[in-house]
Amino acid sequence: MDDFSGINWPALMHGIDGDGLDILLAVSPENFFYVTDTLLLSQKIIPSRLAMALLPRQTPPAVLVCDCERQQTLEDSRIRDIRTYLEFQDSPVHALAQLLEERDLGSGRIGIEKRFLAACHIEQLAALLPEAQLVGADHLFDAARAVKTPAEIEIMTEAATATEQAVLSAFRAAGAGDTEKKVADDLSVRLIHAGAASIFMTLAVGTNTAINHPVPGSRQLARGEILRADLGGVFRGYHSDLARPAVVATATGEQRSVYQRLREAQRETIDAARPGARACDLFDTCKRAFEQRGLSFFSQAVGHGLGIGLHEFPVLEAAERAKLKPGMVLNIEPMAKDAQGFLYHLEDILVVTEQQPQILTTVMATQELFIIR
Amino acid sequence: MDDFSGINWPALMHGIDGDGLDILLAVSPENFFYVTDTLLLSQKIIPSRLAMALLPRQTPPAVLVCDCERQQTLEDSRIRDIRTYLEFQDSPVHALAQLLEERDLGSGRIGIEKRFLAACHIEQLAALLPEAQLVGADHLFDAARAVKTPAEIEIMTEAATATEQAVLSAFRAAGAGDTEKKVADDLSVRLIHAGAASIFMTLAVGTNTAINHPVPGSRQLARGEILRADLGGVFRGYHSDLARPAVVATATGEQRSVYQRLREAQRETIDAARPGARACDLFDTCKRAFEQRGLSFFSQAVGHGLGIGLHEFPVLEAAERAKLKPGMVLNIEPMAKDAQGFLYHLEDILVVTEQQPQILTTVMATQELFIIR
Repeated sequence: MDDFSGINWPALMHGIDGDGLDILLAVSPENFFYVTDTLLLSQKIIPSRLAMALLPRQTPPAVLVCDCERQQTLEDSRIRDIRTYLEFQDSPVHALAQLLEERDLGSGRIGIEKRFLAACHIEQLAALLPEAQLVGADHLFDAARAVKTPAEIEIMTEAATATEQAVLSAFRAAGAGDTEKKVADDLSVRLIHAGAASIFMTLAVGTNTAINHPVPGSRQLARGEILRADLGGVFRGYHSDLARPAVVATATGEQRSVYQRLREAQRETIDAARPGARACDLFDTCKRAFEQRGLSFFSQAVGHGLGIGLHEFPVLEAAERAKLKPGMVLNIEPMAKDAQGFLYHLEDILVVTEQQPQILTTVMATQELFIIR
Repeated sequence: MDDFSGINWPALMHGIDGDGLDILLAVSPENFFYVTDTLLLSQKIIPSRLAMALLPRQTPPAVLVCDCERQQTLEDSRIRDIRTYLEFQDSPVHALAQLLEERDLGSGRIGIEKRFLAACHIEQLAALLPEAQLVGADHLFDAARAVKTPAEIEIMTEAATATEQAVLSAFRAAGAGDTEKKVADDLSVRLIHAGAASIFMTLAVGTNTAINHPVPGSRQLARGEILRADLGGVFRGYHSDLARPAVVATATGEQRSVYQRLREAQRETIDAARPGARACDLFDTCKRAFEQRGLSFFSQAVGHGLGIGLHEFPVLEAAERAKLKPGMVLNIEPMAKDAQGFLYHLEDILVVTEQQPQILTTVMATQELFIIR
């Protein structure tokens, strides 16, 4: 048997059994990487070039990739049964159907990612295998991926630390009069040098902070305005995701107070991240902590799982009943607004443990609102 | 009526008419940006947070986005009818169905992106609107986006020039002994400073060049080895995409010859990009040009459209009968291998015009194989 010790393989196999699947297909870039260790850039930039991992209940796993991706898959994956299709000459779904028939699974119960796989592919697969049952199985990957192994937590700790170090350095280097773009570019460069293969970067000052994912622009850091940075990178396949507010040059009493109360509410929410607590309990905790401190609460969620995906299961929203488990990596990211309409965004990453949560983002001292010189 | 002069709006409206659609939905990040001018980061990083543009045949267009994306959409889009849904409390597809009913289109013929929209969304929409006809309409966006307006060509020219300038500078700064990662990071930093909001970066030397999308690693640039860089960035929503080979320190006669023949074959293919030529004709031209020069031809495609997407319609492959039109922006990117197994990848960008093709990547003198010092 192949070695899958780096991921939560037992949960995945248990899910396949529990849902009575004959086979589970990993098709999204995230789930494909999860089971194959292979980060194929084309999955992100050329979506029609499908790559799939096949996980049958009773026989060894296989991979189906475009012929041009064979060499990387062979080098990176632990799965040894690698099949290929020739782009434009054969369709990936046709090749998949053939492979399923070959495994006597053409009329089986096939778990697919209905949240990812495009309608045209499902229609084609259903037409090619009219006897097959195509059932949504996204939740099996959600559940398995949510609980990280020590190997995954090690990568994510490094990613979190590198990202926070970049933010701290960039905030220290920034000054009033700099543009959003200049500070953001400095941050991006630091992330690249720290090893991030892919970056998401939002950064804004003043009223621009109210945009959900602000694109850094030509606006200058003005004295007394709040800056908001929400960013992350992909390190060895795993995301970091972090938000920090700061104030330019000088902070008013109200600004210090909004930040203090936001941070207290966030820490109260973090402390509630214990095994057995439900995702919605953390949402409620945060909402109550805001209300108790006279902060207006307007978020639809206060956090989310993090890993190969940026927003993973479980999302910490009002209706999510999923219970936290040791090994889950979560972001807690409440936001508050002050009277000027500036948005304060504080986001940290933690691991759920048997005891108190272990915070991964500990580089910056966040007790006080950061003041950019 | 709103002003859509920056895009190929007539072709889109003509397609809606021609396919007898009552409404066309833009749901992918690319098509949503195309019709709304709004680049929502969450479409890329939080795919469940659907954003949609609704283009009815007879009434004004509308946009449906998550409540948290309202402000950016309002600032960036020309479409004034902006509807929102509250994440987790309402589902985007449910909100869409309501909006379609409101427009009396609940039993209409609805064009959807079947190559993008996930199976779960289509199933939900079909269940909510059992009378509706959901038809694949991806090709309408393909056809419209393929022909760029002068405004789009201006952005893409700037993007191409900035990217090629970054490659030239990075190649000049590189030297034997540098790692792939060092050269790639230098390139990424230059692209960021040039204004790229998102970057894809592949770079390899020696036998690593044979990997389709090599991740830059710790391998050092060794004297006499071929380096291959294939990269691009997103500038104001539009991609650049460029590949350049180089040799480290010194070139053998064979290396110079392989490159010379590759370039001749590429230029012959570029010259064939005239209005009325079919995509497959360019494939055939390139294949023949390789064979005439004793180069082994192993590619499944020799190029592709470029724009908001990285691989757009038409792909220049053996079976694609689409005819070229003035205004199409195409990449021509043949690859050749030498006896050592090193891969030479030469990719340039052109605009199809009424006369000869206009090459957008003219910064580097590519008559001779670039020699890294």
